[in-house]
Amino acid sequence: MSGSYETLLVEEGPESITITLNRPSSQNAIDTAMLNELNAVLDKTLKDPRCRLIVLAGQPGVFCTGMDFNELSAATQKPVSAAVGQGQGAGLYMSTIKRLTLEPRLIVSIVDGRAMAGGIGLVAASDWVIATPRSQFSLSEALWGLLPAMVAPYLIRRVGFQTAFRMTLTTLPISAQEAWTAHLVDEVSEHPLDNLRRLWLRVSKLETATVKNVKAYFREMWLISEQMEELAVAETNRLAADPVVIRNITDYIEFQKFPWDEK
Amino acid sequence: MSGSYETLLVEEGPESITITLNRPSSQNAIDTAMLNELNAVLDKTLKDPRCRLIVLAGQPGVFCTGMDFNELSAATQKPVSAAVGQGQGAGLYMSTIKRLTLEPRLIVSIVDGRAMAGGIGLVAASDWVIATPRSQFSLSEALWGLLPAMVAPYLIRRVGFQTAFRMTLTTLPISAQEAWTAHLVDEVSEHPLDNLRRLWLRVSKLETATVKNVKAYFREMWLISEQMEELAVAETNRLAADPVVIRNITDYIEFQKFPWDEK
Amino acid sequence: MSGSYETLLVEEGPESITITLNRPSSQNAIDTAMLNELNAVLDKTLKDPRCRLIVLAGQPGVFCTGMDFNELSAATQKPVSAAVGQGQGAGLYMSTIKRLTLEPRLIVSIVDGRAMAGGIGLVAASDWVIATPRSQFSLSEALWGLLPAMVAPYLIRRVGFQTAFRMTLTTLPISAQEAWTAHLVDEVSEHPLDNLRRLWLRVSKLETATVKNVKAYFREMWLISEQMEELAVAETNRLAADPVVIRNITDYIEFQKFPWDEK
Repeated sequence: MSGSYETLLVEEGPESITITLNRPSSQNAIDTAMLNELNAVLDKTLKDPRCRLIVLAGQPGVFCTGMDFNELSAATQKPVSAAVGQGQGAGLYMSTIKRLTLEPRLIVSIVDGRAMAGGIGLVAASDWVIATPRSQFSLSEALWGLLPAMVAPYLIRRVGFQTAFRMTLTTLPISAQEAWTAHLVDEVSEHPLDNLRRLWLRVSKLETATVKNVKAYFREMWLISEQMEELAVAETNRLAADPVVIRNITDYIEFQKFPWDEK
Repeated sequence: MSGSYETLLVEEGPESITITLNRPSSQNAIDTAMLNELNAVLDKTLKDPRCRLIVLAGQPGVFCTGMDFNELSAATQKPVSAAVGQGQGAGLYMSTIKRLTLEPRLIVSIVDGRAMAGGIGLVAASDWVIATPRSQFSLSEALWGLLPAMVAPYLIRRVGFQTAFRMTLTTLPISAQEAWTAHLVDEVSEHPLDNLRRLWLRVSKLETATVKNVKAYFREMWLISEQMEELAVAETNRLAADPVVIRNITDYIEFQKFPWDEK
Repeated sequence: MSGSYETLLVEEGPESITITLNRPSSQNAIDTAMLNELNAVLDKTLKDPRCRLIVLAGQPGVFCTGMDFNELSAATQKPVSAAVGQGQGAGLYMSTIKRLTLEPRLIVSIVDGRAMAGGIGLVAASDWVIATPRSQFSLSEALWGLLPAMVAPYLIRRVGFQTAFRMTLTTLPISAQEAWTAHLVDEVSEHPLDNLRRLWLRVSKLETATVKNVKAYFREMWLISEQMEELAVAETNRLAADPVVIRNITDYIEFQKFPWDEK
């Protein structure tokens, strides 16, 4: 599986696979290529019964900054539905997040630096999250007139309603320590791989079938439904097609102008 | 909008409005007049697009002590449905609480002192809550045979099930610090206006439409439904019509006798 | 009510009853006899209006270690449905847990030592939990290929999704202090009876009808439904009938062999 990806670095261990988001020039923003490649790797691991642990990592200093604005902006040149339509864009992101929470392997995210917007969705959907102390977590969507619509259900599941609402409304970053208190992060450590090793020593005792059962069962014990996920995709698409939002994003990309300038 | 209210003080700023609950002789208890006036002010602000921040405050030492027992008692002289019926009393309180959570402006409560019973509902329904260290929060309803039925859904949303259940069952006050840990309060500060200023510096960057979208969308991401709110009103009315509850309240108002005296 | 039970010690006070789980040779594991006797005691207390407080306790060092594996193993000699069928085994456990959360008396669990697996369900379903500092809480089910399926809904209600998921997936114990932070425990104390006395001083002021109303109403304010409880029983029965799980348990009982040995 190794080596042949445009947006990812993939490294195989004896019973694990490490997927490193690898778009440093775009601050590890998520584009359609990354989502497709991530799904392709996950598909392949399903065929290898030895692979029981999937590690998701970012670059030093930046885990993931969310959906790629350039792609979104390019899409606005065409009919919006072309890039943010069904099965692509929003729909593809949502199904990838959901998939992580149901994948019959342990999914561990290691965050070292900034996790923003859609990047928080990857974190919230992971079974276990280890962050370095310098990590920061923020939902910046509202500044652009967008919402973290697809992140919200899984973020609320992890941190509760009020913390998710607060992060959305203030758009202010929280520290690794605050994220740990809120259960967005399960461990804070200078040496995440040591923590990962200790965790795996225990969790590797579980059968793959049991990991699958736990994840599927816990979904039934909470209020996320397919209907809620469809609403999340619809709301994302609705906002991405809003002329004000399109102008906000275009102005930023072309003129580094923020929506609240000249107000 | 300023000046002409019986139960409120209303002060306008350039892009904000401050509503101060002003029934100090009744410990800032909520009566029908207060709910009507509060709704009237909210209606008016909706017509002024410059008004983007609504601050809810109480008196020094007492934010709000909940529904006015005298009004409830007076109502028991007439058929109960007259005061605690549809659109009045319980129904009016519930719709006001709900309205705060959907209002297309930022709602900030500043608590300096006691918040009790129905007063906790105003707090729980606010987007952001800043409390001074001497503030205290308690649900005293169960002592009278009542329930914080209409407070519960929004309190649970903010603090989780167990903390809301615990406050209801023990009726014991929690401190500002405990309320902060539980997310009932977002900030504890000796100087709430400084915190408000810092918060607004950030949140004022959001379009009004975005604040509206965030609040409406987060409602869809949680388990509060119209049906749950109707149940809350029905349970409140059921208990307010209970002869034991009526006697408990009447005995207290007329003889300062508590329900657990002589037991 | 005192004295005549095989698996419990029952002690009556003037307005309370203390039920001590008493199978020390089985580490206070839950078997059908214990569930039947627990329900019989609860039935009897309902007939005594003076009894307003029910205390649930374990042995020093061990509160309860969950469902009895020997009984489960013996059941596998017969058709599985014989022991883990409707109204028995899983169904009986689930209805007992549910009952605790609706019982028109205050239910306080005092934990001094280990609470595991199904034992956590008793804790999570209690209205109030006081634990000594040496107490430990763990969900070991997944190590055997099982799930804490019937514990999960009530555990999530108390501690939130992520903490319940984390305990299930890692199977690692958490300390009394961590359990307190997570709201699985309401108080940590070297002298639980002192805390119980202080609590009762306050809660005894509530009418029995009010305690009943609070518990019934809060159930309506959360996402646990009968359908969810039926799913929990079905999932438990499904896993208990799984040949891999049966072998895991039999190997342990007969040869002290763990599922992850020789892997």
